[in-house]
Amino acid sequence: MIKHALPVTREADFAAWYQAVITEADLAEESGVRGCMVIRPWGYGIWERIQRLLDDRIKATGHENCYFPLFIPLSYFEKEAEHVEGFAKEMAVVTHHRLVADGEGGLVPDPEAKLEEPLVIRPTSETVIGTAFARWVQSWRDLPVLINQWANVVRWEMRTRMFLRTAEFLWQEGHTAHANAEEAREETLKMLEVYRELAEDCLALPVIAGEKPENERFPGAVATYSIEAMMQDGKALQAGTSHFLGTNFAHAQNIRFQNANGELEFANTTSWGVSTRMIGGVIMVHGDDDGLRVPPRIAPWQVVIVPMLRDKPEDAELIDYCKALQADLAKQSALGEPVRALLDLKPAKAATKRWGWVKKGAPIIVEVGPRDMAGGNVSVVRRDRLYREDGKLDSAILGRDAFVGDVADMIADVQAQLFADADARLKSNIAPVDDWATIEAMFADSAAKPGWFDVAWSRPTGAELDKVVERLKALKLTIRNAPMGQTGHPGAACIFTGAPAVERVLIGRSY
Amino acid sequence: MIKHALPVTREADFAAWYQAVITEADLAEESGVRGCMVIRPWGYGIWERIQRLLDDRIKATGHENCYFPLFIPLSYFEKEAEHVEGFAKEMAVVTHHRLVADGEGGLVPDPEAKLEEPLVIRPTSETVIGTAFARWVQSWRDLPVLINQWANVVRWEMRTRMFLRTAEFLWQEGHTAHANAEEAREETLKMLEVYRELAEDCLALPVIAGEKPENERFPGAVATYSIEAMMQDGKALQAGTSHFLGTNFAHAQNIRFQNANGELEFANTTSWGVSTRMIGGVIMVHGDDDGLRVPPRIAPWQVVIVPMLRDKPEDAELIDYCKALQADLAKQSALGEPVRALLDLKPAKAATKRWGWVKKGAPIIVEVGPRDMAGGNVSVVRRDRLYREDGKLDSAILGRDAFVGDVADMIADVQAQLFADADARLKSNIAPVDDWATIEAMFADSAAKPGWFDVAWSRPTGAELDKVVERLKALKLTIRNAPMGQTGHPGAACIFTGAPAVERVLIGRSY
Repeated sequence: MIKHALPVTREADFAAWYQAVITEADLAEESGVRGCMVIRPWGYGIWERIQRLLDDRIKATGHENCYFPLFIPLSYFEKEAEHVEGFAKEMAVVTHHRLVADGEGGLVPDPEAKLEEPLVIRPTSETVIGTAFARWVQSWRDLPVLINQWANVVRWEMRTRMFLRTAEFLWQEGHTAHANAEEAREETLKMLEVYRELAEDCLALPVIAGEKPENERFPGAVATYSIEAMMQDGKALQAGTSHFLGTNFAHAQNIRFQNANGELEFANTTSWGVSTRMIGGVIMVHGDDDGLRVPPRIAPWQVVIVPMLRDKPEDAELIDYCKALQADLAKQSALGEPVRALLDLKPAKAATKRWGWVKKGAPIIVEVGPRDMAGGNVSVVRRDRLYREDGKLDSAILGRDAFVGDVADMIADVQAQLFADADARLKSNIAPVDDWATIEAMFADSAAKPGWFDVAWSRPTGAELDKVVERLKALKLTIRNAPMGQTGHPGAACIFTGAPAVERVLIGRSY
Repeated sequence: MIKHALPVTREADFAAWYQAVITEADLAEESGVRGCMVIRPWGYGIWERIQRLLDDRIKATGHENCYFPLFIPLSYFEKEAEHVEGFAKEMAVVTHHRLVADGEGGLVPDPEAKLEEPLVIRPTSETVIGTAFARWVQSWRDLPVLINQWANVVRWEMRTRMFLRTAEFLWQEGHTAHANAEEAREETLKMLEVYRELAEDCLALPVIAGEKPENERFPGAVATYSIEAMMQDGKALQAGTSHFLGTNFAHAQNIRFQNANGELEFANTTSWGVSTRMIGGVIMVHGDDDGLRVPPRIAPWQVVIVPMLRDKPEDAELIDYCKALQADLAKQSALGEPVRALLDLKPAKAATKRWGWVKKGAPIIVEVGPRDMAGGNVSVVRRDRLYREDGKLDSAILGRDAFVGDVADMIADVQAQLFADADARLKSNIAPVDDWATIEAMFADSAAKPGWFDVAWSRPTGAELDKVVERLKALKLTIRNAPMGQTGHPGAACIFTGAPAVERVLIGRSY
């Protein structure tokens, strides 16, 4: 039996395993500040890679980055009624702008420095950005406005979980204004597709893109779309959303323009975002019982070289051999970018370092000992196939030059393999179901990991939808989305109402 | 006489001119949130370039990026006494985590959701990062810790000025821990040099690097170093700081490690930062009466192509000509990176667009009309030399291919020219002075822009230093820094105390 690197397996306790990956891979840690985490270099490095890849795509689709204030005056939230309703509950509120000594060696908010109007730490920036749009947009010539910001936002969560749900998190939020609804809808779907492509091609996360049901819409939106990824425990993770806001926010914030005929019209707006939550998805899709496995495109280092040093004079020669290897690897190009190769010279034992990189999930780990060097070789471990059939570590001795020549293919292959594995899992865990009883039976067994169900529904609204939501809630289920590109008849009656169905939706448990 | 593009000149009203550049170049605007600005795409694009160039250098010197919480519990500030004293006054304080309806259609902080311990929005992160260092550092093997974060910070300023002093601003803050004071001092100076090089080579801002006097030290620091740039009105702008913190923060936060002999020691720490304030410096050093001039290394677009369209079918051919030009320019490499060329197809008149880019300060503006196209030419304006001697716009008709071939040199030349002009100004406006009377006389005339004075001093401390500071304050002067690399005798008696001098310092007015 293989003795794995983590203290707990996915099978034994998925939640504890998730936390163990985060700790053992040095991704993040508790900060001592309620609900907020410290993102450590390896976790932040993954985020930086995601940022870079997404930012390039955001710019390539014509958007420009800006920066808007962290603080939103309370009154801004009072304007869009539905939006307030959706967000008003849990937000961090700044009420004072000064501290004073309390006379006992401590500090307190200065009663003299109470703000006239409290400021909310942005939970999202529709209101403050909409106010700017109202200034910027006067004529049809000013449209479209296509902007994005990378920022921190705060939602005061009662139960937090690293990456998945933290009080403060990092994200990008795109905001656009358009001359008509058609253009705005097109934008909403264009960015949904950018997210799908980012998730699948860069993060190796297969996702289902689709429209959220009415009850899961962003507060104030006309339509909300999402990409949904399946975790190894069968639960869904909403990994990105794109909202068509119609003229709702334009009405609240007075975003109006003169059209080509000189008439005043309200703009149609959109917003869309992905966050550090995506890293939670990467962990739960690609992690295994030895730690994280980072897809090469988002790995801060794709190849890590660990020299087997012995604190002897001969070390110098070995280090030179490794430096030359690192330099040659950096000259290679994999997946369209120069290979990112690290030489790990930290003062620790080679075996400790090797297992450290296994837990962190570096795609390729290269060990080099004096014997490797003498033979012009390197010992190579691929993180996506760590063990041989006999349960031993699968470390292959390769000619040094042959390895350099093959490294680009090897990196691309790790990327493809991680996606293929996850994709097969996703596909085999979505079951078309025609009757409610089957679903109830599946979830009666709490040990089962049934994945998602693909059902036909009549898209009920209002009170009828509330009933559906309640029925699902009893099994801790939610409607994830109605996948894009549905053509033809959904093929059955609505599983909830029995009425003629209009589309198919995915239901499942979720994070 | 030249009719300039801005409504106000530097000569007439420098402060109003500064604001006009920000508005006319679309750099930033008031947000409606007290003391906070909206950074618009052109301003944010400059910041992104600065970030990229600095981030590369921060990583090349061995640092890794992380992310720490926005919120700092009040108690963290109470630990380092001097630090509290320096920062306690004006900070944004979060006291509640929920809003409720006030029953009159508005929202108020929920009295039921008052935080037990108020949270301060970070004004800087020494305290929260130091707390993490205390967890991370156990042994000498864990040192050095070399990290950085890109973040927003808040200091509640009473009088704000865009980029120079805003309640919220963007910056990077590096934080490091070392096994001994020598290494920490070395790190402090290494990053000071990185800042000098960034300012001079990338932002084309000549600066003086040096040590701040005791009274200008960061709260809790043993030594603070700065780079100081000279604005066109002769005032100084502190454009970056690097602090050697000794063991002060390590004591407050208990950052201790076991040394190689098994003894427990306190770590020595450093911190260093630059912010969006640098953009204020770029404006006041490189701006002219026609707007901003952006040094090519930090220009989001280095070459902007403005086609002279006439809303006629022939436009299509002209656009194709311009697209091919843009593609060929993008294949060139200038200052070590691919040329960033934009084709401006916005619906506006060519002359309006040209002047828009002049005000924004794009380094090279290329206009292409049907006649240019017919002759295989382009009309090129260099932003650093906008007018001919006769006062007309200096637009040169160049062969299209010759221009493409020369563009890299032209870009490098604009970068060099901006630096050379600023450097000559800096050097000619620093005057060595031996007696206080000369300084008083210079500042008696309020219209004069005397620049900085280079004086010898005895480096007084305590009450004696307070007196010097008061004397300077009466003339609105401060000691900027004691330039690095001073060797030999300072050459005169202390201008303040008459005592034997130990070094030379620069004094001047400042932002």
